[in-house]
Amino acid sequence: MSDVLTISQVNELNYEEFIDLFGNVVEHCSICAAAVWRFRPFRDVYHLHQEICSFVDLLPDTGKEGVLRLHPDLAGRLAELGSLTQESSAEQKAAGLDTMTPEEKQLLKDTNAKYRDKFGFPFVICARQNKKEAILKGIVERLEHSAAEELNIGIEEVKKICMLRLLNIVPDK
Amino acid sequence: MSDVLTISQVNELNYEEFIDLFGNVVEHCSICAAAVWRFRPFRDVYHLHQEICSFVDLLPDTGKEGVLRLHPDLAGRLAELGSLTQESSAEQKAAGLDTMTPEEKQLLKDTNAKYRDKFGFPFVICARQNKKEAILKGIVERLEHSAAEELNIGIEEVKKICMLRLLNIVPDK
Repeated sequence: MSDVLTISQVNELNYEEFIDLFGNVVEHCSICAAAVWRFRPFRDVYHLHQEICSFVDLLPDTGKEGVLRLHPDLAGRLAELGSLTQESSAEQKAAGLDTMTPEEKQLLKDTNAKYRDKFGFPFVICARQNKKEAILKGIVERLEHSAAEELNIGIEEVKKICMLRLLNIVPDK
Repeated sequence: MSDVLTISQVNELNYEEFIDLFGNVVEHCSICAAAVWRFRPFRDVYHLHQEICSFVDLLPDTGKEGVLRLHPDLAGRLAELGSLTQESSAEQKAAGLDTMTPEEKQLLKDTNAKYRDKFGFPFVICARQNKKEAILKGIVERLEHSAAEELNIGIEEVKKICMLRLLNIVPDK
């Protein structure tokens, strides 16, 4: 676990330290942190978040899909292998995804596969703001949406995940 | 070293295999491969390259700067630590950067620092298409450019590096 920082400390980091700390606030997508480096000094953690969100919003749709594709399936193969990023692992645990019954696990696995087949990217939800029941209900409902709707919803979830990951590093006192 | 593939074999990869193989054709920027996944099947390696270039061109300027920032300094700290990606390490060796005299090394280091200070991103050049003499000459010349010019030149170099990395994986027979 890294220590927490104040925004003043963040603004004093050199680029390598900044990327080491914030490179995964959007899962496997360090370009987000690299892109907002030029906006230092940040007024607070919300300013940093806002610049990351603005960058994500400016991505072409292919890039937004790419952002979603860089996320792991919930309770999927990577979780079983123990190969999730530290952040994803903690988030999936917080949602109780590690305590699913075999039936719930199978349902999530099947629905994840259907979702990915239909949309071409994985189901992304802010696990720390949802419990496993809400996630299971959510994926079944969202499967009925259009691809454009799910691209938007998925990206909004990415932003929520990003905010919580940022607050882990730079708590708002 | 990974085995080489034909474009038909590339088109049969699943997403995880695709990202494992192509995630670093743009240095530390796996979103590029993730974004072009939707354009399968690729006609040939040049088609894959072209889609990656189109995606990079669609990035906002902050994103293009981010792409450059994710590149290491030539013969910089990461090279000294042996912490370069496998691709960067081979490329810097091919340019002869590992055989620089102490004076050349110091010149490159100093000019790299000036370049980064002036533009806010590192000097990027396709090392496999240049020898150390051309690189040393190039960085001194490019230091005179405007930031907008260097953003464009840097991104064009990224595309050349990407093409050579792609051809390493999918040779054009």
